[in-house]
Amino acid sequence: MSKKIVIVGGVAGGASAAARLRRLGETDQIIMFEKGPHVSFSNCALPYHLSGIVEPASKLVLMNPDKFKKQYHIDARINQEVIGINRKEKTVTVKNHVTGEKYTETYDKLILSPGAKPVVPPFKGMDTLPIFTIRNVVDIEKLKTYISAHQVKKITVIGGGFIGIEAAENLQEAGYEVTVIEAATQILRPFHEDIVQIFHKVLMDHKVHLVLGQPVSHFEEGKVVLSSGEVIEAEAVVMAVGVKAESELAKVAGLEVSTNGSIQVNDLYETNDPDIYAIGDAIEVTHELTGQKTKLTLAGPAQKEARLVADAIHGKKVVPQSYIGSSAIKVFDYNGASTGLNEGLIETLNLDIQYDKVYFILSDKVGIMPDSHPMYFKLLFEVPSGKVLGAMAVGKGNVDKRIDVIATTIKFGGTVYDLKELELCYAPSFGTAKDIVNYAGLIADNLLAGDFKQVSVDDVRPLLESGATFIDVREPGEYKLGHLKGVQNIPLSELRERLDEIPQDQPVYIHCRTGQRSYNAVLALQQRGFNNVVNVTGGFLGICAYECFKDQQTAREPIVTAYNFK
Amino acid sequence: MSKKIVIVGGVAGGASAAARLRRLGETDQIIMFEKGPHVSFSNCALPYHLSGIVEPASKLVLMNPDKFKKQYHIDARINQEVIGINRKEKTVTVKNHVTGEKYTETYDKLILSPGAKPVVPPFKGMDTLPIFTIRNVVDIEKLKTYISAHQVKKITVIGGGFIGIEAAENLQEAGYEVTVIEAATQILRPFHEDIVQIFHKVLMDHKVHLVLGQPVSHFEEGKVVLSSGEVIEAEAVVMAVGVKAESELAKVAGLEVSTNGSIQVNDLYETNDPDIYAIGDAIEVTHELTGQKTKLTLAGPAQKEARLVADAIHGKKVVPQSYIGSSAIKVFDYNGASTGLNEGLIETLNLDIQYDKVYFILSDKVGIMPDSHPMYFKLLFEVPSGKVLGAMAVGKGNVDKRIDVIATTIKFGGTVYDLKELELCYAPSFGTAKDIVNYAGLIADNLLAGDFKQVSVDDVRPLLESGATFIDVREPGEYKLGHLKGVQNIPLSELRERLDEIPQDQPVYIHCRTGQRSYNAVLALQQRGFNNVVNVTGGFLGICAYECFKDQQTAREPIVTAYNFK
Repeated sequence: MSKKIVIVGGVAGGASAAARLRRLGETDQIIMFEKGPHVSFSNCALPYHLSGIVEPASKLVLMNPDKFKKQYHIDARINQEVIGINRKEKTVTVKNHVTGEKYTETYDKLILSPGAKPVVPPFKGMDTLPIFTIRNVVDIEKLKTYISAHQVKKITVIGGGFIGIEAAENLQEAGYEVTVIEAATQILRPFHEDIVQIFHKVLMDHKVHLVLGQPVSHFEEGKVVLSSGEVIEAEAVVMAVGVKAESELAKVAGLEVSTNGSIQVNDLYETNDPDIYAIGDAIEVTHELTGQKTKLTLAGPAQKEARLVADAIHGKKVVPQSYIGSSAIKVFDYNGASTGLNEGLIETLNLDIQYDKVYFILSDKVGIMPDSHPMYFKLLFEVPSGKVLGAMAVGKGNVDKRIDVIATTIKFGGTVYDLKELELCYAPSFGTAKDIVNYAGLIADNLLAGDFKQVSVDDVRPLLESGATFIDVREPGEYKLGHLKGVQNIPLSELRERLDEIPQDQPVYIHCRTGQRSYNAVLALQQRGFNNVVNVTGGFLGICAYECFKDQQTAREPIVTAYNFK
Repeated sequence: MSKKIVIVGGVAGGASAAARLRRLGETDQIIMFEKGPHVSFSNCALPYHLSGIVEPASKLVLMNPDKFKKQYHIDARINQEVIGINRKEKTVTVKNHVTGEKYTETYDKLILSPGAKPVVPPFKGMDTLPIFTIRNVVDIEKLKTYISAHQVKKITVIGGGFIGIEAAENLQEAGYEVTVIEAATQILRPFHEDIVQIFHKVLMDHKVHLVLGQPVSHFEEGKVVLSSGEVIEAEAVVMAVGVKAESELAKVAGLEVSTNGSIQVNDLYETNDPDIYAIGDAIEVTHELTGQKTKLTLAGPAQKEARLVADAIHGKKVVPQSYIGSSAIKVFDYNGASTGLNEGLIETLNLDIQYDKVYFILSDKVGIMPDSHPMYFKLLFEVPSGKVLGAMAVGKGNVDKRIDVIATTIKFGGTVYDLKELELCYAPSFGTAKDIVNYAGLIADNLLAGDFKQVSVDDVRPLLESGATFIDVREPGEYKLGHLKGVQNIPLSELRERLDEIPQDQPVYIHCRTGQRSYNAVLALQQRGFNNVVNVTGGFLGICAYECFKDQQTAREPIVTAYNFK
């Protein structure tokens, strides 16, 4: 029997649900309401219109109502907002924003995919500066048109999340002077504090002014004033501090809404009304690794949710879903990707998980190929099981590939021992015979076996300041180009002949360029009776990446004689 | 107690084993014999010296004996060949090719990693042409020096495997006129006949003369003569028809050698002598999906084998290993990757496996991003379990990423249902929200559920010739730029209004550009009472890719009005 299905919201989740519903039910009536003028646009690509990479803006719109109608017999109604739900009558009240008229539509099943709206905190003086948000095609055109028409030079982006950073990059590429203000001490939270410094440096290297750890106080004409009193000149502001679920409609209709404003659903996306589902950025999903509800404003999960709901409506067998959250970002010439748990999340959620981590830096391709670059890679795993919990990678190369492999491993409940054995594609143009992912598994295996001890790059400065002994086992030519101040160079190639120079009565921290040679040194020394040698994971490259931006931000005394990222 | 370990062969397997052995046994004596002048060179990167991408040749050598000695206390002896093994005495006889002297060395454990040598079939007239093979740095320098010194213009590569094609590409990039002769009807066997046509076309587009299905008969001065009588002018020949295990030493020592010449080992790489192991290209390994012994001349497995053997020698717990074989290749501006089983292998081995496949073409990134390209993707899965068996991908983008995810899935015994649910990294610069791998799982799920029927692009020509009815559901603008000759265009946007034009009494084959819209059309028609509609998987893009090169090779009549790869 034919059904009538009404969908609120016509972007990622809504449009996906509509398409799947049509395939499953050729004769069903499917109506998709979108309060804005566009359905099915690429919200993830919005920032790329600012730089002109995606031009004109109309390219951002992938499907229009006419195509929906003709190709899929889906009734996509734009500029029409669902303003009320009568659950008893199973009707929605719709307002046509063009004509102003209101009308009702009945439904058999209702899918809510209203998305989330940018949060705009009520700062003082907000009327003194043009303030923009980025949610849809209208927003991005408004921003681009304004800054072009008003010959704006200086733009401040508030918020260092994905949207803020992508907007900053694209505005900078378009020739604007861009400042990013982030109240926290780092941008891009999926990346841990050590590895994210690379992105801080990349932004700085590309002339984006980055202000960290300073909340905004208020706005004045042509100025963003920080709580420290510092003043950032700005002719326009992009507000990208976060998003909030659009749950007002649901709430008024008596659907359960969580304290943070998300529409409450179970793992099959059912609200407390059996005929109403909710999907996309307006809901929270269950995190597979924490078991807790979490906001994942990502396109991939929205599409999976849409498919499940369409299947459920058609009586197909569906299984409850949970998510691990995989994401990627390009920041100028660097790429970053992450999946699963990270240290920040474990801390914030106060999770009772025993874990350890490996952090290392390896060539993303065979080193002699011209476009090989260091990749900074971190893996989190459960102790003592070795179960993989999460990973992040940053570099110029294909970080997404490595993180996709980790994400796949996590989905199968795999361990670091599995990572060791993975057979990944190899040719010199693509990677290394022993891939970064294999290395991660191998090092983790060694750690779990207790073969060696390690410290992280963020431990180096405090250890140095407390007078700990470090040894740099790189070769003299490398040492000369930059090294930890006051730290002795005993190259691996001389190590076994200079054992008497290494103290036995205290911990000795060994580092090389990336942590590989020093690992060999640590094992050699251990077997020669040195019981307190510790590898510096990440090595000198990792130390430089961690210290460089912080030094320049605070003008503090560097712990290295010179930075060297070679 | 310290051990003395002797290793025969100092490249991938041998060098990896030596390094791991040192880490595990600081005081062991480790001697690595290499009959050639270099240890630890990048054999996979050899072809890239021909084009100058890796220049000078010395860059190909990653470690020298001096470094091995100083950094790892490993005694790497170059130009010294192990010519005999006395298993009773546990000694090897070594010939120093520089001094001519012979001597013996004792061992506690012996690891054979001698590799495989290029096969050079005894063609008539081989003395009339300079013939080269590519195995090591000496070979590649010899080839490069010769063709440069003799102002060679025309080079023929015999053999269309990985090495042959990489050599052809790099020689062409260096400005030579290159012909590739392959006795089979296709190059690069890991790719099935439909998808490999893309590589055939890429070679042709880059002016490499490709001769398929014609064995070489003999050589004459300046000529390679084919069995058909056709003559290929050549001033130099690169012989790349395959490799053969170096097992003579093992055989003479009474170690078991299989009929194809590989050193016989179990899944822990033990030969029939408990103190002798063999690893690398000289052995066969067990294929995880067939259970049969297979040759996998790949660097990744060699390194895994090396590690396991080193661990076993040190009494660590080791588990038997098997392999699925993942590989990648760059051919000019296209990339290819594959893993697991493919149709050729299933056929050749006559495997009793019920399988089905999905073949489709999707954008590797969000279509509106400037560097998005079609990716040709094929997945094989078991029927009815849905267990993933293998996959291959070809395109300008990151095929390796998708195949790595499939390889990971196979290692975990995953199914197409798992592929659907994978959460992969997404941002417009990296892929699509629903990744190609997710799509593969979704389509396979639909196939397994019996939701629709499909035919492959290689079925199209015979079906057309037998008078079958096809319908092209692309929009008129697309149809105009090229379509199947004589095939009617009923755009998806008009389909439901033109049902009376679609025959009910015979099979109707529906295609669009890639198979996506036609899938929607097939489902719509089925639900409207058409019981014999079939999707053409791969669509017009796939048809063009499959037909284009073949048409041009044979000058046969194309089945399309014009090729269109847009």
